Amino acid sequence: MEERWVNSGGTAAPVETDQGVDLHLELSGTGNRRIRLMAALREAIRSGRLAPGTRLPPYRSLAVDLGMARNTVAAAYTELVEEGWLTARQGAGTRVAERAAPAPDERAGRPFRPGPRRVHHDLQPSSPNAAAFPRADWIAATRRALNAAPNDAFGVGDPRGRPELRTALAEYLTRARGVRTNPRHIVICSGFAHGLRLLATVLDGPMAMEAYGLDFYRDILHGAGKRTIPLTVDSHGARIEELPSTDARSVLPTPAHQYPTGGPLHPERRAAVIDWARSSGGVLLEDDYDGEYRYDRQPVGAVQGLDPDRVVYLGSVSKSLSPALRVGWMALPARLVDDVLSAKGSREMQVSVVDQLTLADFFTTGAYDRHLRRTRISYRRRRDLLVRTLAERAPHIRVGGIAAGLHAVLELPPGTEDSAVHAARRQGLALDGLRRYRHPGSPMPDRDGLVIGYATTSDHGFTAALEALCLALPDPPDATRDADG
Amino acid sequence: MEERWVNSGGTAAPVETDQGVDLHLELSGTGNRRIRLMAALREAIRSGRLAPGTRLPPYRSLAVDLGMARNTVAAAYTELVEEGWLTARQGAGTRVAERAAPAPDERAGRPFRPGPRRVHHDLQPSSPNAAAFPRADWIAATRRALNAAPNDAFGVGDPRGRPELRTALAEYLTRARGVRTNPRHIVICSGFAHGLRLLATVLDGPMAMEAYGLDFYRDILHGAGKRTIPLTVDSHGARIEELPSTDARSVLPTPAHQYPTGGPLHPERRAAVIDWARSSGGVLLEDDYDGEYRYDRQPVGAVQGLDPDRVVYLGSVSKSLSPALRVGWMALPARLVDDVLSAKGSREMQVSVVDQLTLADFFTTGAYDRHLRRTRISYRRRRDLLVRTLAERAPHIRVGGIAAGLHAVLELPPGTEDSAVHAARRQGLALDGLRRYRHPGSPMPDRDGLVIGYATTSDHGFTAALEALCLALPDPPDATRDADG
Repeated sequence: MEERWVNSGGTAAPVETDQGVDLHLELSGTGNRRIRLMAALREAIRSGRLAPGTRLPPYRSLAVDLGMARNTVAAAYTELVEEGWLTARQGAGTRVAERAAPAPDERAGRPFRPGPRRVHHDLQPSSPNAAAFPRADWIAATRRALNAAPNDAFGVGDPRGRPELRTALAEYLTRARGVRTNPRHIVICSGFAHGLRLLATVLDGPMAMEAYGLDFYRDILHGAGKRTIPLTVDSHGARIEELPSTDARSVLPTPAHQYPTGGPLHPERRAAVIDWARSSGGVLLEDDYDGEYRYDRQPVGAVQGLDPDRVVYLGSVSKSLSPALRVGWMALPARLVDDVLSAKGSREMQVSVVDQLTLADFFTTGAYDRHLRRTRISYRRRRDLLVRTLAERAPHIRVGGIAAGLHAVLELPPGTEDSAVHAARRQGLALDGLRRYRHPGSPMPDRDGLVIGYATTSDHGFTAALEALCLALPDPPDATRDADG
Repeated sequence: MEERWVNSGGTAAPVETDQGVDLHLELSGTGNRRIRLMAALREAIRSGRLAPGTRLPPYRSLAVDLGMARNTVAAAYTELVEEGWLTARQGAGTRVAERAAPAPDERAGRPFRPGPRRVHHDLQPSSPNAAAFPRADWIAATRRALNAAPNDAFGVGDPRGRPELRTALAEYLTRARGVRTNPRHIVICSGFAHGLRLLATVLDGPMAMEAYGLDFYRDILHGAGKRTIPLTVDSHGARIEELPSTDARSVLPTPAHQYPTGGPLHPERRAAVIDWARSSGGVLLEDDYDGEYRYDRQPVGAVQGLDPDRVVYLGSVSKSLSPALRVGWMALPARLVDDVLSAKGSREMQVSVVDQLTLADFFTTGAYDRHLRRTRISYRRRRDLLVRTLAERAPHIRVGGIAAGLHAVLELPPGTEDSAVHAARRQGLALDGLRRYRHPGSPMPDRDGLVIGYATTSDHGFTAALEALCLALPDPPDATRDADG
């Protein structure tokens, strides 16, 4: 057993300095010193002695303190970064990764969990490019908005949301998404999920949803005691013609861009779903999650514009700005406003008024439009690179859903999804297979595919992520099938 | 019928200018022109033609356009402000009040609601002084926090909350409130209500709570299917000795300052509730809603410090900074963290990351402490003025709960609460009677009283609010009773 005290020694609560945390390491056993150092660091992280976010000493200092070669320590750091235990960022040094945190129960004696998966690139279709968040614009808007706000903005809030934001939204949604509403019919929520949770308690009867969609939304509805009915999805979106033979009282489509398979709802089906709602007294919940991102044609306006009395329009800033801002909105039929408000509670319980005021400023000053234009260009470039790369490197893979949004679907030969997802993980990619989106009980067959979110990863990492993706894709099938495809 | 077009005439969506909105008014009938003008303005607001927040033309312009005397129009504006239909603020002109918004259903043909109540002063114990919100400090902290944040702060959030905030909170709560915790055991929530909702799904069995408390919290627990058991409250807080004879598995007291009656939990009862939790395996939920506001003695540390494995400590910024920021926290026993996180969901769904980062900066730079010191002085002055005024003007009324917090309780002779609350409303005061806080089914008798929140109203309005309050209080009882009291 070698024992070394680094800096001032092992404290129970490490004190962080510019030179990183004070660190006490025990290198047990003999043999390869890099491997023993890595084991000691993993153990310190697992036990909680090195907390998530803690900055490690520079490898040069640690090498001196441990009497090791610099290269050995540097290699140990690099490997632990690759394994996901540490993160390294220019200017921020090497730190314990957030995901490396031990579960609280580990300290209470439960068995250790396995170490975090090695993830280099996030291709999950979850969020926009975090590096593109318009920090300077947001700071400036916060300053203007807080200075202009009346005092009562800092009191107990109105559950409808701030009037400044509802007014700005009514103008923006009318102009940009063809929504017909006014500030009195808009209710602010913390995001789509919050809106859906409120509507699940307000609307009666079962809800139809697309047979491919987010399991997370199904969970919300089932958690609220709602039965869901899957509608078949084809290249024209959800098959609305199935609705009349169900006992659904509401339907939740993604008309602008079916999630995740990618097509817009066909114009005839847009009309058909309104007809269904009118004749049956049903309600349409329009999930406009990425309606602003269109690349190859004009944006499709919201279905809500066809009949504001039959449609609840739902949107948020989670795809356009950041899921770290918890702001979304519903444009409601007049008759539902009171019920939604009483489900929400008698005051604003969820959504930061500072964020609401700042976002209102973003809309009215044009900063929101500018941000959309900038990111639309950047995401379009990424999409083009994805399509081009796959055409060159994997021409047997069809790419769908590329006209819009922040993700695409790679269609895979039947039976190859699982192995492709696993191969991608081995390549350090986090991504989703298509089958997990399938509604249980749907008569639709499983479709093999990969859902590729191309917005989240960093600019400099995207090319490498595509490279890794190509290595994970299944080989072309035999020549006969190739000719058919 | 007189009909006048003011400015460019009545548009469906009025266009607001520096001179106020374009306005088309129909003054029907004959008789007093002030009354007819007021009726026309009320009707324009009720019908939605004049939306909340809309700026009216200056009374001079409207007088010219309508061919009326200036004084008549000015008087109509003033009366509508007093009735709550309009608001007038220095520099912002006269605007349609937010609360004057018609319910959405009014447009759909339901009968009109009565006009808003005339409220001049808010003495409800709901929120701190909105005018004291430290705007400039918050803007500066936002700038620092957003510039310093790593990119991943703008991605999908960790349901525990940002590590910067949890780290800052662990330090602050240890130092200021005697809490024993660490960042891994803290979970961020949108406020006390959100935390309670999560805990209601995690903790099993009935929950004991104080027989006087917020009906709103009872509603949350009952809504989550939880049975609640009232504990008698006396001048030493909740009677903990009642706990062992109940089947409660958890208990929700307000140890620092019983809400709303005002005393701290007696030291023997603090020890007793920990003993109960240890021996029964129960959990204590400590609602530390205003623990930072102490006037006459040292702050009482959190009960949580006595046994962090038995107590969930809950706090928020709703009383200290503003309920408009939706940020609260729980310091949890290790064994509850995973369950609370899985109740919260797999990502941050509620709490703005920008607010979290800014608040972390507020804690670490000392801006939070400075704000507390400033507001503590201001609230203490208000409390002193309240006590002094009542001693002079209504010496027969006992004032309780004045050592701490942002509210006091005025004890009233039995049977006089309702008439006092109504008299207060007629004086333009919004305030709560004590009896609405009583837990239904509690063996405690109804106690007549008024709960006076002295933080919310504006500085310049507070003296007038006290004046109005004195006018609303019941007269002294006869001499015999007076001598007894």
